[in-house]
Amino acid sequence: MGTEEIAKRYVELCQAGKNELCLDELYAKDAVSVEAAAPPGSERTAKGLDALHAKSKSWGESNVVHSAEVMGPFPNDNRFAVRFTFDVTNKPSGRRMKMDEIGLFTIENGKIMREEFFYST
Amino acid sequence: MGTEEIAKRYVELCQAGKNELCLDELYAKDAVSVEAAAPPGSERTAKGLDALHAKSKSWGESNVVHSAEVMGPFPNDNRFAVRFTFDVTNKPSGRRMKMDEIGLFTIENGKIMREEFFYST
Repeated sequence: MGTEEIAKRYVELCQAGKNELCLDELYAKDAVSVEAAAPPGSERTAKGLDALHAKSKSWGESNVVHSAEVMGPFPNDNRFAVRFTFDVTNKPSGRRMKMDEIGLFTIENGKIMREEFFYST
Repeated sequence: MGTEEIAKRYVELCQAGKNELCLDELYAKDAVSVEAAAPPGSERTAKGLDALHAKSKSWGESNVVHSAEVMGPFPNDNRFAVRFTFDVTNKPSGRRMKMDEIGLFTIENGKIMREEFFYST
């Protein structure tokens, strides 16, 4: 698949809430995920598909999602960007908050090799 | 200035329509601008502040802007992203269109050294 096709499939799976399938179908085994800031109790960078599944699972378990919007994709060559907005309640703190961020995805050999999230910290 | 400060200033100047001042104040002399696709009659990549001014002038002369929205910034380390939506009429074609894109900006030595625009082509 080319960038545009992978990007559209990424957005489609995210909008359907199929995050685990998205990882398994579109990501490279040694893909890397980089946050703008380290989440509480973890590193800024997660390496490898197992670590990305763990990160996704942990986020799902820590947050109640009231609404989510996935906008895009916005492609350029072998990369694409996506904008996300979330209205969530963080379970540990009980705090409800809005999240607004941009993800940047880099494709190598037909798989997502790197994802980076941009937001104010 | 750090990334967050430059990013906020960038958004502020764009929202005020001060595109030339934005280039002069925030960009490196040898900054590079990369489009997702080559605009009609030009290259995908423009190099140097003079070329970026020419590009900005050309865009301004070719389009009537009915409305514009600049969302962000979304920082990560020495980069930041911005989402733009425009409602414009292209003067040469007379065609009114909506544009929706994401800009990615890379800072080196306190100046924007690279801008890249992401959108469907």
